[in-house]
Amino acid sequence: MNYYGSYVSRLIEEFSRLPGVGVKSAQRMAFYVLNGPADRAEALAAAILEAKNTSKYCKHCYNITDDDICYICANSKRDARTLMVVESPQDMAAYEKTKEYGGLYHILHGAISPMDGIGPNELKVKELLARLDADSPIAEIILATNPNIEGEATAMYLSKLLKPLGLKITRIAHGVPVGGDLEYVDSITLMRALQGRLEI
Amino acid sequence: MNYYGSYVSRLIEEFSRLPGVGVKSAQRMAFYVLNGPADRAEALAAAILEAKNTSKYCKHCYNITDDDICYICANSKRDARTLMVVESPQDMAAYEKTKEYGGLYHILHGAISPMDGIGPNELKVKELLARLDADSPIAEIILATNPNIEGEATAMYLSKLLKPLGLKITRIAHGVPVGGDLEYVDSITLMRALQGRLEI
Repeated sequence: MNYYGSYVSRLIEEFSRLPGVGVKSAQRMAFYVLNGPADRAEALAAAILEAKNTSKYCKHCYNITDDDICYICANSKRDARTLMVVESPQDMAAYEKTKEYGGLYHILHGAISPMDGIGPNELKVKELLARLDADSPIAEIILATNPNIEGEATAMYLSKLLKPLGLKITRIAHGVPVGGDLEYVDSITLMRALQGRLEI
Repeated sequence: MNYYGSYVSRLIEEFSRLPGVGVKSAQRMAFYVLNGPADRAEALAAAILEAKNTSKYCKHCYNITDDDICYICANSKRDARTLMVVESPQDMAAYEKTKEYGGLYHILHGAISPMDGIGPNELKVKELLARLDADSPIAEIILATNPNIEGEATAMYLSKLLKPLGLKITRIAHGVPVGGDLEYVDSITLMRALQGRLEI
């Protein structure tokens, strides 16, 4: 029912399409826009259009950036011999937050998932291979796809694809998360933590 | 840190201003916009601007509407003798959903709250009085402001203001909510439910 007129109803509908937003939250957002100053609504609308129309992929790593090359690839202090392959820009950001990784990234924009019709051709795999040509300085590729079925399948696929190139291919370690409680960790993770044990 | 370029960062910031949206949710929303088709982003931006710029208050009840007069006030089948005073369009919608109320509404757009600097002049109180002139058909005013401190104060204020006009002034009943468990109902509500008991 169209209690507040068609424009507000449409705004509620548009907000409720966003991930994690139900009708009640969408309604709160719509009334926040209606009750706020006009320049706040304009700033939100402009930010949506600008981000959508102006952001582009970095030519090297396929991160999202304002310029042709992202701030990580443009930074000559980063170690160009190490390349970490991740599924999404958010995963890249998660590793950047650790401030422990000084190499470069390659963003696949997804993971292999035959159920959703996503194969290597839908990902930035060709683009990854193009970065590994003869005069590339890359010596190690770290496969940091997600530790779920799709991410593991992608890591497996890439390791088979890249092994013949003679590079060092590694996968981030599986194990018990720091701060966790062994009692609540699933058996597969416990098993992997045992298999991956290191001498101290 | 500006991981995804300035445009995406600005979009994340704008989304996180919306009520109930944290940085993580704002990031998910921004990537939803980035990864979706351009016409979805345009539809969202257009809906924000249209709702903000085109929606107006109903001349009679101050509901939000596309036209000068809202669909409730324009409906001649509604009982013009009864007027329900509510704080917000959402409260009006909540009563409309019951399909039990056939009268008209008046929306105050807030409640008296001296702490927030909101007095009767910040609400649509003058506009309510203007509706109660000599040739108005209104015979009963139902005060349906929220059952909290501000809503009660507003109801009290309006009842004192409107009593001299010789109209029937009523307040929605306080009591135990249907489907609730007495054990978990607060003492004031239990007391009000006892005071307001009806013969069956």
